[in-house]
Amino acid sequence: MATQRILDFLATRRPSGPCLVVDLDVVRDNFRAFEKALPDSKIYYAVKANPAPEILRLLAAMGSSFDTASVAEVEMAMDAGAPADRISFGNTIKKERDILRAYQLGIRLFAVDCVEEVEKIARVAPGARVFCRVLTDGEGAEWPLSRKFGCVPAMAVDVLRKAKVLGLDAYGVSFHVGSQQTDLTAWDRALADAKKVFSTLAEEGIVLKMVNMGGGFPTRYLKDVPAAQAYGQAIFSALRKHFGNALPETIIEPGRGMVGNAGVIKSEVVLISKKADNDNVRWVFLDIGKFGGLAETMDEAIRYPIVTSHDGDETAPCVLAGPTCDSADVMYEKTPYPLPLSLTIGDEVLIEGTGAYTTTYSAVAFNGFEPLRSYVI
Amino acid sequence: MATQRILDFLATRRPSGPCLVVDLDVVRDNFRAFEKALPDSKIYYAVKANPAPEILRLLAAMGSSFDTASVAEVEMAMDAGAPADRISFGNTIKKERDILRAYQLGIRLFAVDCVEEVEKIARVAPGARVFCRVLTDGEGAEWPLSRKFGCVPAMAVDVLRKAKVLGLDAYGVSFHVGSQQTDLTAWDRALADAKKVFSTLAEEGIVLKMVNMGGGFPTRYLKDVPAAQAYGQAIFSALRKHFGNALPETIIEPGRGMVGNAGVIKSEVVLISKKADNDNVRWVFLDIGKFGGLAETMDEAIRYPIVTSHDGDETAPCVLAGPTCDSADVMYEKTPYPLPLSLTIGDEVLIEGTGAYTTTYSAVAFNGFEPLRSYVI
Repeated sequence: MATQRILDFLATRRPSGPCLVVDLDVVRDNFRAFEKALPDSKIYYAVKANPAPEILRLLAAMGSSFDTASVAEVEMAMDAGAPADRISFGNTIKKERDILRAYQLGIRLFAVDCVEEVEKIARVAPGARVFCRVLTDGEGAEWPLSRKFGCVPAMAVDVLRKAKVLGLDAYGVSFHVGSQQTDLTAWDRALADAKKVFSTLAEEGIVLKMVNMGGGFPTRYLKDVPAAQAYGQAIFSALRKHFGNALPETIIEPGRGMVGNAGVIKSEVVLISKKADNDNVRWVFLDIGKFGGLAETMDEAIRYPIVTSHDGDETAPCVLAGPTCDSADVMYEKTPYPLPLSLTIGDEVLIEGTGAYTTTYSAVAFNGFEPLRSYVI
Repeated sequence: MATQRILDFLATRRPSGPCLVVDLDVVRDNFRAFEKALPDSKIYYAVKANPAPEILRLLAAMGSSFDTASVAEVEMAMDAGAPADRISFGNTIKKERDILRAYQLGIRLFAVDCVEEVEKIARVAPGARVFCRVLTDGEGAEWPLSRKFGCVPAMAVDVLRKAKVLGLDAYGVSFHVGSQQTDLTAWDRALADAKKVFSTLAEEGIVLKMVNMGGGFPTRYLKDVPAAQAYGQAIFSALRKHFGNALPETIIEPGRGMVGNAGVIKSEVVLISKKADNDNVRWVFLDIGKFGGLAETMDEAIRYPIVTSHDGDETAPCVLAGPTCDSADVMYEKTPYPLPLSLTIGDEVLIEGTGAYTTTYSAVAFNGFEPLRSYVI
């Protein structure tokens, strides 16, 4: 996944210390792949995945809309050229004064998942559109801990009814099927829940208009365009199945899917050692770890591909750890990572698929180490 | 643990947004308590716990030494007035060029836990003192994942022998019994291991001089001075038991113990909601979370005391979560946190015992949120 442009950049510039390099050509290709796969959906790029100004400018110019998590992200999207009507304040947890600031900046689309949030919006953003996030069964099954966002569909009805009563535009519902979701029935179930909310409110004369299908679009399908289109087709069929001819507007919010495979982290092997002479696992310490940008290795959740200049040589299992004095700064230990026996202290390695959720997750100064540097080319 | 000075500061200054306030008087008291408890040990403050310049300057003026994790931390300690001979480069994972820079700054004391690290130091820091970190049984039992630092005692002998052969000063051993260690037998076992390394090398004519007992000193003993002294006495007895009259120099490296109880985070309740009408657990969302400084709530490891203005009112269990669009940004869910039913959106809460490992753990800009602000008074 390290493109030739990224390899050339690293070879020419030779940046010292760990850094992320993002290839805008890949972001451009990803945006087009999403457009092709779901031609009837509007794309709201999830700014939190990587808010680099170059990425935001490219996507704004290509016509993308933006999903934002804070006023700072709203401002970043606007600075990149996105008009306010292409920006959604998609965080369900907002201070009232932040809603007000966003409203003053022209934002008219807000996420909610409870009556309390609707009340805040009604007070400071009169007439704004709100969509309610629904906690789907599919989501519950996939991510037992992800009940943080959304409410059950029955409550979503109450929330949107309240929005209407308070003078807001009860605009739609959103859901998130879980990251890298490949089980198409999850989309089907979520859309069935969404339709239920639409129907119940329609009986009361409240006509919702939009379904926000969130992220979760599996990136591995992106390279394989026919598969991406088949995937999009399956989602479209589920929409048809539940909504018939009264298809709602749809939104998708890709983040990792838009930038994950566009970025590569260059890192250096700081130390290779053992804890005892008879240990069969080596410890490989890099100059980046869980607190320097690789936070998503938490619980060994995401397993990044690692490329070395010794690939092809015989490998052996390694514990992979970061450079800080923190015993939690270990990326892969339960499932050791196979690395070439010929790997040496001082070698550079490339950590692929790191374009999303790395630079901003980076700790500000843990152990005195700088935050992750980033180059967008 | 919120001192009157901290409460007065917050009442007068009314800082907006989440922030940490550290009371230097508490740090001063903690330093004196450590001096009293272990009068024969040198105190090396673990800079990584909180590198605020005001804290470093206070401790430097009080005569503290400093344990550092990077060249940046070495420089911070020197900027605060610590001479190079009171600074240890205590990270066992160092780039050779960083060892060189530290050596050029005058640092002569380095941690190692393998032959490879000794070789780096020998190349660029000739004649420096090195101490080898030993992986103790006590540590292994307490923290199954903390094998990151240290090697088995038999390997430590090889490592220090190699140091001697390469012209370095084989100076001692270090260990870490695990954070908040209250089992005194852990110290006894670790000191027994240290003594073994001393004895084996003494037979070869290599005379070690120092035992670095690391951190782990339980902070709850600090307030209770007689208990702290009893604790110190027990450690001193273990030293006597294993080293007899040939007592080595000893070092301790308190971090959390020095600053943890000196700091309080002020936060605001952003939202209180339920996921369904019949839920018996409320969700309370603060404007600080796992990515804004409370990283140590990972796996619900550290349970901070939370003070509200409604304490004393009836409580009910809450899931406590941060403000970001990340489903992992939940502090307490498996074991819900009891909070007053009268707690309201917009209320301020104080999160106590947050002086250590908060500001620097904070993400640089996750979801567009600023890193945690800090005031040292």
